[in-house]
Amino acid sequence: MRQSQLFTRTRKEAPKDEVSKNAQLLIRAGYIYKEMAGVYAFLPLGLRVFNKIVGVIREEMNDIGGQEVSLTAFQQKETWTPTNQWDDKEVDVWFKTQLKNGTELGLAVTHEAALTKLMKDFVSSYRSLPQYVYQFQTKFRNETRAKSGIMRCREFVMKDLYSFSRTQDEHNAFYEKAKQAYEQVFKRLGIGNQTYLTFASGGMFTKFSHEFQTVTDAGEDLIYVDENKKLAVNKEVLNDEVLKDLGIHRADLVEKKAVEVGNIFSLGTRFSDALELNFLDEKGVKKPVIMGSYGIGPARVMGTIVETLSDKDGIVWPEAVAPFKVHMIVVDSKDGSARAAADALYAALQKAGIETLYDDRDLRPGEKFADADLIGIPYRVVVSEKTIAAGKHEMKVRATGEVRSLAETELIDTLRE
Amino acid sequence: MRQSQLFTRTRKEAPKDEVSKNAQLLIRAGYIYKEMAGVYAFLPLGLRVFNKIVGVIREEMNDIGGQEVSLTAFQQKETWTPTNQWDDKEVDVWFKTQLKNGTELGLAVTHEAALTKLMKDFVSSYRSLPQYVYQFQTKFRNETRAKSGIMRCREFVMKDLYSFSRTQDEHNAFYEKAKQAYEQVFKRLGIGNQTYLTFASGGMFTKFSHEFQTVTDAGEDLIYVDENKKLAVNKEVLNDEVLKDLGIHRADLVEKKAVEVGNIFSLGTRFSDALELNFLDEKGVKKPVIMGSYGIGPARVMGTIVETLSDKDGIVWPEAVAPFKVHMIVVDSKDGSARAAADALYAALQKAGIETLYDDRDLRPGEKFADADLIGIPYRVVVSEKTIAAGKHEMKVRATGEVRSLAETELIDTLRE
Repeated sequence: MRQSQLFTRTRKEAPKDEVSKNAQLLIRAGYIYKEMAGVYAFLPLGLRVFNKIVGVIREEMNDIGGQEVSLTAFQQKETWTPTNQWDDKEVDVWFKTQLKNGTELGLAVTHEAALTKLMKDFVSSYRSLPQYVYQFQTKFRNETRAKSGIMRCREFVMKDLYSFSRTQDEHNAFYEKAKQAYEQVFKRLGIGNQTYLTFASGGMFTKFSHEFQTVTDAGEDLIYVDENKKLAVNKEVLNDEVLKDLGIHRADLVEKKAVEVGNIFSLGTRFSDALELNFLDEKGVKKPVIMGSYGIGPARVMGTIVETLSDKDGIVWPEAVAPFKVHMIVVDSKDGSARAAADALYAALQKAGIETLYDDRDLRPGEKFADADLIGIPYRVVVSEKTIAAGKHEMKVRATGEVRSLAETELIDTLRE
Repeated sequence: MRQSQLFTRTRKEAPKDEVSKNAQLLIRAGYIYKEMAGVYAFLPLGLRVFNKIVGVIREEMNDIGGQEVSLTAFQQKETWTPTNQWDDKEVDVWFKTQLKNGTELGLAVTHEAALTKLMKDFVSSYRSLPQYVYQFQTKFRNETRAKSGIMRCREFVMKDLYSFSRTQDEHNAFYEKAKQAYEQVFKRLGIGNQTYLTFASGGMFTKFSHEFQTVTDAGEDLIYVDENKKLAVNKEVLNDEVLKDLGIHRADLVEKKAVEVGNIFSLGTRFSDALELNFLDEKGVKKPVIMGSYGIGPARVMGTIVETLSDKDGIVWPEAVAPFKVHMIVVDSKDGSARAAADALYAALQKAGIETLYDDRDLRPGEKFADADLIGIPYRVVVSEKTIAAGKHEMKVRATGEVRSLAETELIDTLRE
C-alpha cells in the first residue's frame, strides 16, 4: 500500500487522558482511535494487525477440531437465570438495555450459557459428541476502571472456544490439546518466551484452571514464576499444598507483574446441569455433557505485544502480526531517479507477494524514518540516490537495528523467507 | 469437511414462531440459530456463507479505494447531538445503556457521525483528501417488528462505507464508481438479474439517492420497475416530474415487492458542518468536507438469496457464496468398497483445492439426498456401488437438476473451473 493513500497519520502526542503505553503508541502510530475509555476503534493498520492475530488463533483452533460460529451480543434473561448469572449482583459487569416492549436484554459478557442452550438443538446421543465450538465475537463488560488501553476494554472481541465432552477422560484429553494449542499461539505471535503457563484456582470441578500470563510491567496481575520450569502460579493458589503438588519450591519463585492473555478452565457440568444439556450414552443412560472454556482476547494480545516488545522509538512488531512485512521509504533525489527506482522496487515487491507499505509521501527523510520506527514494521528498506549509486538497497531490521546492503534479488529472496 | 464432524444437523421443522422463508430454511438446514426475534447466531455453515459474501463486498470496496476499519458499537451522546440524532424522538431505534457512573451510551445504529468525528484527527488540508473508509460492523436497531428473518434484524453486521471528498465533482465521480461496484457485488453474489437500481428521495443535498432493490415476495418495499431499462423508482419519488427526469413512462412500470439490499446516498455537508470536519483548500480557504454513505447488509443479502433462489426442496446457493462447492455423498456398500472409493475421492478433491462437504454419516441414502437438497451446495457428487461399477462419479447440479457421469479427472477438471 502507498502510504500517501493511507488516511491515518502519526502524531507526536497521544491524548492526554491516555495513561497506558500500548494505547499511547498505538494511537500515535495510527493503529487505533480512542472512542472513550475502554472503547477503541481499529484503523486500517490496526485492523491488519488484529486480523493477523485472529488468523493465527483461528488456524490453531481449527487444528484441534474447532468449528467456528458467531453468536449474538443480545442475550435474554431466560438464558442466564438457570446459572444465576443474570443478576447484576452475581455478574456485576452486565450492560443491560431493553426492547420497545420493555423486555430486558443484556449485552453478552461471555457466552457459556448461550452456547449451552444452542447445543441442546444438536446434542442428543453420544454419537453427537464430542464437539468443539468457537467464535471471535464482541463482548461488552461494564468495567469500573478502564485504564490499560486495549488490554482491558468495555467492548472487545474475544475468541472463546467451548468443549462438549462425554467423559472426564475425553474432556481431559482435549484440555491438554487446547493447552498445547495455546502455547503454540503465543509462540507464533512472538510472546512465547515471556508467556507462562500459570496455575490458578479450578473452581468447583477441578483443582486448577490455567492462565497464560505474559510478564510485563503493564500487567494488572501478580504471578509467581519458576523460570527454570517455565511455570507460574497466581496469587490465589500460592500455598504450600499447591507448590508441593506442582513440585515447585517457594525459593525458586520470583514475583512478576503480568497480563493474562489467555485462560482455559473446566466448567464440569455446571452449565449442562443448569440448562439441561444431556446426552444418552452407549447404554441409553442420560448424562450431562462435560464442558470446558478456552479464551483469548486478540486485542489484549496486541496490546501486550506493544507493551512487551516496543522500544523508545516505537513499536516492534513480530513478523507474524505486523501490518506489513516491509516499510519501503523513498528519499527523493532532485532528478527523480530515486522515486523511479522506488516505484520499480515497490512493483517488484508486490509481484513477489511481499506485503509492503511504501512511504511515497512528500516528506523530509527524517520524518519518514521516525514514522517507520514508530509504526514498527519488521523490515525497513530505503531507496535513495546513495543506494542507487551503490547498486544495492538498504535494509534495516527494526528489532535489532541490523543494517544490510542487498542487491534487489538478494533483498527479495531474504524478505520472501 | 466431513459432515460427521459438523455439530449441526438438519431438522424437519423450523421453530413455530418463525414466519419468514429465509429463516425457516436457514434454521432447518443448520445455517443459523434464532436467539430471539430479529437476533440470529451464525452456525458453521452459515458463517461460511456470510464470510463469502463479506469477501466479495470487501474485494469490490478495496477496488474502489476503500480502506477498512472497525468502529465501535458504543457511542457517546456528544457524537450524535450536533446532528440532532441522539434524541430517541429523532432516531427511534436506539438501544441505550449506561456506564456504572451513569453516563448514557448508545449502541451504534449507524456510524456517519462517529466516523466524521474520527476523521477530524486526520483531515486538515486538501492533501489529506479524498478518503474512502469502510467497515463490516455490528449495528443495533430497536425495531418494533422483526419478522423477516435475517433480512431485518435488531442486531446485524453492515458494510458501511463513507466517502470524504473535496468538491461536488470529486464526490459525484466516486458516487458513480460506488454505484458500479454495487452492481458488480450483486452480480457476483448471484442476484444481479433480480436487483434493480432504484431511484429514491435524495434529501437535502441531491435530488436522488439510490437503492439496490431485489425483487422478491418477501420484500417489505414496493418498487416500480421498468424492466427494459433495468431501472426502478420507489414509492416516494413516483411522480410525473421524476419520471420525466428519468425518461421513464408510467405505462412501462410494474409494481413489485422488493427488499433493499444496498443503498448509496449523498450526505453533502450535513455531518461535516455539524461536526466541523473541514479542510483548507489549495488557496487556504476553509471548506466543509463533502460526504457520501454506502451500505450493504451481508446477512440481508444472504436472506434475500435464500428467498429468491430456493425451491421446494431447499436452498440453492450461487457458487460464489455457497458454504462448500461440492457436497459428496457416500452410499455405503456391504463390502465397504463405496466408502473406500469415497474416502479416496474426498482426498483427491481436497488435494485439488475444491471445497467439499463429505457426507460420511451412517444414514440412509434418502436422508442424505434430502439433506443435500435442503443445504443447497451447488454440486452433489454421489459415490456408490453403482458409480464404482460404471467407473464414473455421478454429479448433479443443484440449480438445474442436471446429472452427469464423469470419470474422476473429468469431475475434478469440471469442478475446478
